[in-house]
Amino acid sequence: MHKIYYPYTEFRSDLKELVQKIDQKFDAIIPIARGGLSIAQMLGEYYNIREVYAINTIGYDDTVKRDEVEVFNVPNLQGAKTVLIVDDIVDSGDTLVEVLKVLQNTYPEIRFYSAVIFYKPTACIEPTWWVKQPKGWIEFFWSEDL
Amino acid sequence: MHKIYYPYTEFRSDLKELVQKIDQKFDAIIPIARGGLSIAQMLGEYYNIREVYAINTIGYDDTVKRDEVEVFNVPNLQGAKTVLIVDDIVDSGDTLVEVLKVLQNTYPEIRFYSAVIFYKPTACIEPTWWVKQPKGWIEFFWSEDL
Repeated sequence: MHKIYYPYTEFRSDLKELVQKIDQKFDAIIPIARGGLSIAQMLGEYYNIREVYAINTIGYDDTVKRDEVEVFNVPNLQGAKTVLIVDDIVDSGDTLVEVLKVLQNTYPEIRFYSAVIFYKPTACIEPTWWVKQPKGWIEFFWSEDL
Repeated sequence: MHKIYYPYTEFRSDLKELVQKIDQKFDAIIPIARGGLSIAQMLGEYYNIREVYAINTIGYDDTVKRDEVEVFNVPNLQGAKTVLIVDDIVDSGDTLVEVLKVLQNTYPEIRFYSAVIFYKPTACIEPTWWVKQPKGWIEFFWSEDL
């Protein structure tokens, strides 16, 4: 697939667009690690939300997809009412679906939203907010810049 | 205190210096949220370590420091032998000391290392690796750019 380098400057401008779309606050932000970590840090600072708790999944093996997504290190969300899950990209959608399932089962009283930068319309789920569709294989600056 | 904006370009070049100092691999990387999140994402990509598990602390209230640091969302590190804790800055050192204490008590068999960008020599602990000393109040790009 066509590779596209995604620099920090574009990330910054896409996040500005994303926060304009979101336009609400949450009790916690959950980045799906590793993809959502930088996004969660910047959104946490922007919304002044200190409750940024990562969650982990195993699902991709390089570019080869496995059938199952395992979710672990589920954070303590006791007392939260609305929570935002963030990731860099919704590709197949399997990861987000599984994360939502585990979180919703663990915390049935919480309303979960999701926000990503890239969303592929062929995915099995559409996140609540997204910025754009990928036109190839995105090489994020955090994978390329060191 | 004198405020200093810390842009992504400088962060990138400091991380390049940091990975040269570290020069070893780990079984997991633990960012202290929120400060260590972007660093952990980039180091995880660089070392090809998918085991990036965040940990949370409460300790600062804006710029006013509290007496105690509470550590929570301790990740599952079963089976790991060497683990790297990352944060943006070691200022008083209280956060890193408390995180190390909780992690070492929970996992006495694991060897923990720590890496940060900024280290104040007045801190009560020196991280294993650090890049430079802050010359004022650092305004990280992730706090300023949105």
